[in-house]
Amino acid sequence: MAKNMIIGQSGGPTAVINSSLAGAIEYGLQSDKISNIYGMINGIEGLMEENIISLSAMFRHLPHELNRLKHSPAMFLGSCRFKLSNKREEFERIFEVLEFYEIGYFIYIGGNDSMDTVKKLSDYAKSIGSDIRVVGIPKTIDNDLNGIDHSPGFGSAAKYIATCVREVAYDTSIYSIKSVHIIEAMGRNAGWLTASSVLARQDNMPAPHLVYLPEVPFSVEQFISDVKAKLEEYNSVIVVVSEGIRDKDGNYISAAQSTSADQFGHARLSGTGAYLKSLIEKEIGCKVRALEPSVLQRSAGHIAALTDVNEAFNLGSVAVRAAVDENKTGVFSTLRRTSNKPYCVEYDTEDVSVVANEEKKVPVEWITKEGNDVTDEMVTYLRPLIRGTVQTPFRSGLPDYVDIRHLDVRKQRYTD
Amino acid sequence: MAKNMIIGQSGGPTAVINSSLAGAIEYGLQSDKISNIYGMINGIEGLMEENIISLSAMFRHLPHELNRLKHSPAMFLGSCRFKLSNKREEFERIFEVLEFYEIGYFIYIGGNDSMDTVKKLSDYAKSIGSDIRVVGIPKTIDNDLNGIDHSPGFGSAAKYIATCVREVAYDTSIYSIKSVHIIEAMGRNAGWLTASSVLARQDNMPAPHLVYLPEVPFSVEQFISDVKAKLEEYNSVIVVVSEGIRDKDGNYISAAQSTSADQFGHARLSGTGAYLKSLIEKEIGCKVRALEPSVLQRSAGHIAALTDVNEAFNLGSVAVRAAVDENKTGVFSTLRRTSNKPYCVEYDTEDVSVVANEEKKVPVEWITKEGNDVTDEMVTYLRPLIRGTVQTPFRSGLPDYVDIRHLDVRKQRYTD
Repeated sequence: MAKNMIIGQSGGPTAVINSSLAGAIEYGLQSDKISNIYGMINGIEGLMEENIISLSAMFRHLPHELNRLKHSPAMFLGSCRFKLSNKREEFERIFEVLEFYEIGYFIYIGGNDSMDTVKKLSDYAKSIGSDIRVVGIPKTIDNDLNGIDHSPGFGSAAKYIATCVREVAYDTSIYSIKSVHIIEAMGRNAGWLTASSVLARQDNMPAPHLVYLPEVPFSVEQFISDVKAKLEEYNSVIVVVSEGIRDKDGNYISAAQSTSADQFGHARLSGTGAYLKSLIEKEIGCKVRALEPSVLQRSAGHIAALTDVNEAFNLGSVAVRAAVDENKTGVFSTLRRTSNKPYCVEYDTEDVSVVANEEKKVPVEWITKEGNDVTDEMVTYLRPLIRGTVQTPFRSGLPDYVDIRHLDVRKQRYTD
Repeated sequence: MAKNMIIGQSGGPTAVINSSLAGAIEYGLQSDKISNIYGMINGIEGLMEENIISLSAMFRHLPHELNRLKHSPAMFLGSCRFKLSNKREEFERIFEVLEFYEIGYFIYIGGNDSMDTVKKLSDYAKSIGSDIRVVGIPKTIDNDLNGIDHSPGFGSAAKYIATCVREVAYDTSIYSIKSVHIIEAMGRNAGWLTASSVLARQDNMPAPHLVYLPEVPFSVEQFISDVKAKLEEYNSVIVVVSEGIRDKDGNYISAAQSTSADQFGHARLSGTGAYLKSLIEKEIGCKVRALEPSVLQRSAGHIAALTDVNEAFNLGSVAVRAAVDENKTGVFSTLRRTSNKPYCVEYDTEDVSVVANEEKKVPVEWITKEGNDVTDEMVTYLRPLIRGTVQTPFRSGLPDYVDIRHLDVRKQRYTD
């Protein structure tokens, strides 16, 4: 007997979470084991409040909208930061709603915390003898998930950062005066995104000249000395730093600045890049700019990597297949790299306990001894992930992303 | 008798200055009145040092490279910030070089200062009886040039800013918690770029919720009150501010912060956005992020507006036509809007004294009474300028821009 599927999104946005959603919906629409596909608005939190829409009704007759969804950043269904406690009432409420909607398949797209939710819900289902299948789809720009070669969302963010470095390098190379540009990349504990900036170096472009990852201790003295050395060789020096770089005692470099701040609290102004900017102004005295692309790096759908979009889409399909056709639960869809030249991956599932609540950091061997660059192994790992150009639909000069607000009328009708 | 042409670039980069260069080169290559086309490396400063390359030799047989040049941001020939003094030696040196290279046509791409150079050189040429024609090609992301409907480079920067707002809005709308995002746009004295962020509002998207231009005084109290009011209505509020906003006494808002700074000089860290962020944290206490795209907004060739690219290219051709076929000097190429629906422009030239050393600011009537938004007239003016999607060439996942460093070998050979 056909059952219903429900799907939700959780955690921080990426450029391709909706690609996974589109992949899951497409697989679901084609399966005769699934009657309806529901979406939770704002993840598990919305589920408990029965904030639920019918995705099958919305997309069944709109294949073009499904394709737009595949190419729209952020989260069509909205997010939450809700972490399941161990309270029995929460689980009972969730399964009450799932039973009411006759759900057979629960699909959740997210990072570490969301995979923890998948684990808890699948464990609970087993414990009460429910046959609801609970399957995760991974995502994060930080690339810090275990059990997968690389996380969907990372490749697009990496392409954004590497493109920024190239465009800043073109911009700054036109003058003959000395200057330093610091780009602060996201990544509190894992330096993958910062590392990906080195992909900008093709065609003998030397930028970025220095990169600093949070996996190795950051020394302010060494940093100044590194920048001085590069300024000897180049007019324009481009530095990429992870927001989470720390000194040898584990103190955040930006937080270290906060500690030494005055009573007006000015130092709260400074991100890591802004702090390093002030440091160079003081110690070297040349022109310095700090760039903080912030959330732009995770939501720039217009420059997503097609490889990433397609992999995220496939991971969406693979998760639904695992739940529906392979009767799996407590797993997430994953991919393994089988070859670099040509770049190939194979899809599979992995037990969700492999990923839940653990961070995959950059191996220290992939960072140079000097702590200001990465090795060739890192470049080989990264290079294929940013490939492929998306054909973003534009309207009136701007990216034409799908938005649940535009579908509100339909949503009302479909959920009647 | 055919003469030679020389061309240079000056001032700050835009996404389309090289489009103008490509347009000028293409026109020059096709003219039988021009023998060779030379390029000054680093503008007038390079000219005086005879840092000159042959562009005709470089591009004559490389039409594909000329097309890549049309779509590459920043400045192929490099820039300078050199302002001609009134020293006779400088003029004599320049004309000595121009005569040595048998230059008949001097073309200069730049903003206010560069048009001042065009004026001075054309005046000097007349004063010594030289028949060298001196013609400018306008550019600036700030859109602050007089004598032209809008400046080449502005449309692409406007598209970048509006796209940022849309992508940030998608990113931030997924949560149900209250947040404020502040995007700081370039524009010290003219708010055109900040104003262009409102184009993001298509499809009922409310972002940006507030915009502040430097043309009207900024009040910190009013700002806090505006943000509070928007937070009543929306979870996620997006604010765009010009870097150059000032209080009623004309003090920069960021500089005002500096004045009140402590002895450690921390306030130097803060741009305008970062300062407003600290203000909201203190006065409202919700989640706030400040985004400073900095030079990315002027060099993001991958999301340039095709309208802008094509207009810049045409303005390059029109300038050379004016010098070579219309015997004009002391003018710059310009465009006039003849219709909005459909959007049409006509090309012409204008006396360079109209533009030199003056800034075109946003008319105060185009800013709302409250000083936190712009009027429909502004939107009508802006809307056509960001249209058209460029097909940026990508290689290995990254924009494949032309770079003079790649052509170094040829450059050596051609200048032998």
